[in-house]
Amino acid sequence: MILIDDQLTKRENAHIDIEDRGYQFGDGIYEVFRVYNGKVFRMQDHLDRFQRSADEIGLQLPYGLDRLQSFLEQLIETNGLSEGNVYLQASRGVAPRSHPFPEESRSVLVAYTIEGERPLEYIRNGIRTITEADIRWLRCDIKSLNLLGAVLAKQKAKEHGCQEAILHRDGTVTEGSSTNVFLVKDGQLITHPANNLILHGITRLVVLELAEELGIPVKEETFTLEDLRKADEVFITGTTVEISPVVQIDDYHVGDGKPGPVVHRLQEAFEKQI
Amino acid sequence: MILIDDQLTKRENAHIDIEDRGYQFGDGIYEVFRVYNGKVFRMQDHLDRFQRSADEIGLQLPYGLDRLQSFLEQLIETNGLSEGNVYLQASRGVAPRSHPFPEESRSVLVAYTIEGERPLEYIRNGIRTITEADIRWLRCDIKSLNLLGAVLAKQKAKEHGCQEAILHRDGTVTEGSSTNVFLVKDGQLITHPANNLILHGITRLVVLELAEELGIPVKEETFTLEDLRKADEVFITGTTVEISPVVQIDDYHVGDGKPGPVVHRLQEAFEKQI
Repeated sequence: MILIDDQLTKRENAHIDIEDRGYQFGDGIYEVFRVYNGKVFRMQDHLDRFQRSADEIGLQLPYGLDRLQSFLEQLIETNGLSEGNVYLQASRGVAPRSHPFPEESRSVLVAYTIEGERPLEYIRNGIRTITEADIRWLRCDIKSLNLLGAVLAKQKAKEHGCQEAILHRDGTVTEGSSTNVFLVKDGQLITHPANNLILHGITRLVVLELAEELGIPVKEETFTLEDLRKADEVFITGTTVEISPVVQIDDYHVGDGKPGPVVHRLQEAFEKQI
Repeated sequence: MILIDDQLTKRENAHIDIEDRGYQFGDGIYEVFRVYNGKVFRMQDHLDRFQRSADEIGLQLPYGLDRLQSFLEQLIETNGLSEGNVYLQASRGVAPRSHPFPEESRSVLVAYTIEGERPLEYIRNGIRTITEADIRWLRCDIKSLNLLGAVLAKQKAKEHGCQEAILHRDGTVTEGSSTNVFLVKDGQLITHPANNLILHGITRLVVLELAEELGIPVKEETFTLEDLRKADEVFITGTTVEISPVVQIDDYHVGDGKPGPVVHRLQEAFEKQI
């Protein structure tokens, strides 16, 4: 079953209108929730971010977060999802095509579950990455459906046999195409500040909390491709990749090409939370 | 009737899948064609641009441009469209959600007609505009479905009682949220070069051709908000707005606040083409 607006319905009944603004303008927002053992990890953080994304683009959600949470839990239970993701999106609804917000339209909300194991291979052995110019818009803090820049970067990574593209603006690293990026230098974590140029990742936030608990110093500061090259360790974070070490960037290995000790400590602490 | 892939079908039969990449990533491209007296204006230019947009994002169209043209003409004839637009889009198709291009997916093509008169009020009396930071991605030359930046700018213009937002990057004017921008200074036209930061507008191209015919000198160069303020005339171009004078920008009038002589000459020459 899937959720459309406030109805649990069969997948085959789910049809989107050709004039849905999500389809014609990418005019909408989304979240991906991770489910461990039937429970959503950091549900409230994801719901709050969903609301914030909606507010930032002036999109009126069809109902409140409490009701949404209850629908998502019902969806997970109905589908018997134990390990996997919930994908949720809301568009500004259906209206004759015109750029400004329609005077009258009701947002269209869709959510469904996807079974899937944790990416243990990436988590244990690390991922390979390319670096790529960040050509996306200047509101990457909004989790919007305008993802073509991310799609093109991820595709390029894939064509190079890699799993992620690390994006940079004129040499300043922002984030991955669908993940946040951290480096470790002399025992300290560095990651891009949570401003308009990156998604305010929830796993990023979890890592900042874990680092504090573990006494690992953190700087939320910009860093360059050159800093990345000199880093002792590099890792990415995201709802599905969790905390995954980066072992290769373009043509060079990070450190000795194996996941390092700091990412390992963070991963161990993360395991206890899920 | 509307066109879905290679079928003319009733509007009510048109349903988009929730996992269409157009809906989840804005992963697709579009064109808007203007129909005058049952005929598409500059059909070939629009088709060529559609193909170029597809190529730039690695999207395989379901069939060639000749066949597409024939379907669009059939659509216009079937619907008896005399004055109005044809909206056409193609997405990368339906596949389980994942950023890279799917290994197997067939692009989904949709086209439909919209009846509509020419915006004679704008063309004759001009439009009011605001200026707004251009926060869009760096491939505005691709006519993609990632239009949220344009939507937000146009909405802001509307909230200020205006019809368009003139966008700028750090004070350098790029284009309007859905139009190209020209200024006239000392009898010369100036407009942003057709690079990655603006859409290569077809009406923009027509204006360049008309200017040459009329002996009006043109510079394709960047200009600033300050240049705009000092301009003798300003106008926007687009498939639906054609050549519309800008009579107000933020809190000031352009020239004497009425459409000027150069835009008038261009409009007269344009009328002969349509």
